[in-house]
Amino acid sequence: MDTKALHTLTYGLYIITAKKGDRFNGQVANTVFQITSDPPTIAVSINKQNLTHEFIQAGQGFVISVLAREVPLSLIGQFGFKSGREMDKFAGINYKLSEGGLPYLADHTLAYLEASLNQTVDAGTHSIFIGTVTDAAVLLQGEPMTYAYYHQVKRGTTPKTAPTFTVGREKDKTALASPKYQCTICNYVYDPVQGDPEHGIAPGTPFADLPEDWTCPICGAGKDAFEQI
Amino acid sequence: MDTKALHTLTYGLYIITAKKGDRFNGQVANTVFQITSDPPTIAVSINKQNLTHEFIQAGQGFVISVLAREVPLSLIGQFGFKSGREMDKFAGINYKLSEGGLPYLADHTLAYLEASLNQTVDAGTHSIFIGTVTDAAVLLQGEPMTYAYYHQVKRGTTPKTAPTFTVGREKDKTALASPKYQCTICNYVYDPVQGDPEHGIAPGTPFADLPEDWTCPICGAGKDAFEQI
Ligand SMILES: Cc1cc2nc3c(=O)[nH]c(=O)nc-3n(C[C@H](O)[C@H](O)[C@H](O)COP(=O)(O)O)c2cc1C
Ligand SMILES: Cc1cc2nc3c(=O)[nH]c(=O)nc-3n(C[C@H](O)[C@H](O)[C@H](O)COP(=O)(O)O)c2cc1C
Repeated sequence: MDTKALHTLTYGLYIITAKKGDRFNGQVANTVFQITSDPPTIAVSINKQNLTHEFIQAGQGFVISVLAREVPLSLIGQFGFKSGREMDKFAGINYKLSEGGLPYLADHTLAYLEASLNQTVDAGTHSIFIGTVTDAAVLLQGEPMTYAYYHQVKRGTTPKTAPTFTVGREKDKTALASPKYQCTICNYVYDPVQGDPEHGIAPGTPFADLPEDWTCPICGAGKDAFEQI
Repeated sequence: MDTKALHTLTYGLYIITAKKGDRFNGQVANTVFQITSDPPTIAVSINKQNLTHEFIQAGQGFVISVLAREVPLSLIGQFGFKSGREMDKFAGINYKLSEGGLPYLADHTLAYLEASLNQTVDAGTHSIFIGTVTDAAVLLQGEPMTYAYYHQVKRGTTPKTAPTFTVGREKDKTALASPKYQCTICNYVYDPVQGDPEHGIAPGTPFADLPEDWTCPICGAGKDAFEQI
């Protein structure tokens, strides 16, 4: 049995938010889909250990923010590699409230969908939360961020359609000769050919020449969390 | 509430197959996703009226064929717009059997996943079938067919990345002047600028000049099922 077959499934990328008392939390999830259209219901699969799981049960509802392709990777780091048990996920985030008073991301978001929980399916390590859509709006026209695209970007390869990443194609000799480094926290690969232009690091910059306060653009880990690959 | 927000969710495109006694059936579905990784479980949302729904319950399992982007639209027509109650879905289809004896498509398929049913969730018009993966293989390297891509192709627009559809860009004056026609069965749009090269119809062919035995490349309906738009 080759479980790599699972990697051929296609997903979008979303921030799922929920509320407990007057506190908000949210996390990245790719496992969002529509179940029925009449009435419109949507489902998401959430790990039982996540704080968001606890909040969805407490507030009996959730909101899905559909991420645009241009979303900064640092946002995925903040919501997808850190837990609300250790930090305030909404620190520095521009958000608005849905009709039911749940937060959705106001930037880099194609649309949001608010759902009121009507079924929780126990699926082992995860619960599938099924909810009826109670509020929804389209915020932005554009391409959605997909799970596949995110992994291509994170791996440091250049998706054909990525305007911001074509710069990596002008292979610089210094950079080619210098090794790649991988983040041990989130597996992001620093590729010196590409640099990290989003944070002022020009293509062609070897890992050793990165400023000491440079951090992983995905999860925010320091340089010392990186290993040569 | 703007339910168009639901259209921003991202999906792949799959053929779900199942067995009842010694008969096979299958249908198109976009609502496939992984639920847990340990053990690997997958879910699919299937309309209760479909023959495939009956077969999955009878055989207590299903197989997912992950469609490649190059899959002919006629295959989606055969599995997605017709019911196994009226025809043999596997007529003319090249298939093989998974370990559990369920059929998967041998052509235009990136991978297949066989699952043994372990939970059926009643979600109104649909059931969510959750199964543990029991057999899986990667068959082909390539891009998956996605729901968004399928709709772009069906609408007759040209996805940026579609090699087979760039021909439509050489806008032919005759074709531009002549109207588009839409299939009343499956909503496929015949665009004279694009023609139907997969079936020998050159770009620039007006609808009126299509041979009388030309049929909808998606659902197989005749020319008389088309209306000018
Ligand atoms: C690309 C990506 C996709 C993810 N998809 C899911 C998912 O579908 N379900 C899930 O439970 N966790 C998923 N996660 C992990 C959670 O986002 C992560 O565990 C988060 O730190 C949980 O935060 P919380 O404890 O504040 O709820 C994903 C993470 C990433 C980076
Ligand atoms: C692009 C596309 C996506 C579809 N997705 C689903 C789906 O997720 N679930 C479902 O029940 N039907 C879906 N359908 C509809 C079924 O494929 C269709 O009803 C089929 O004729 C059922 O065949 P059966 O009665 O032989 O099982 C989809 C159809 C198309 C064309």
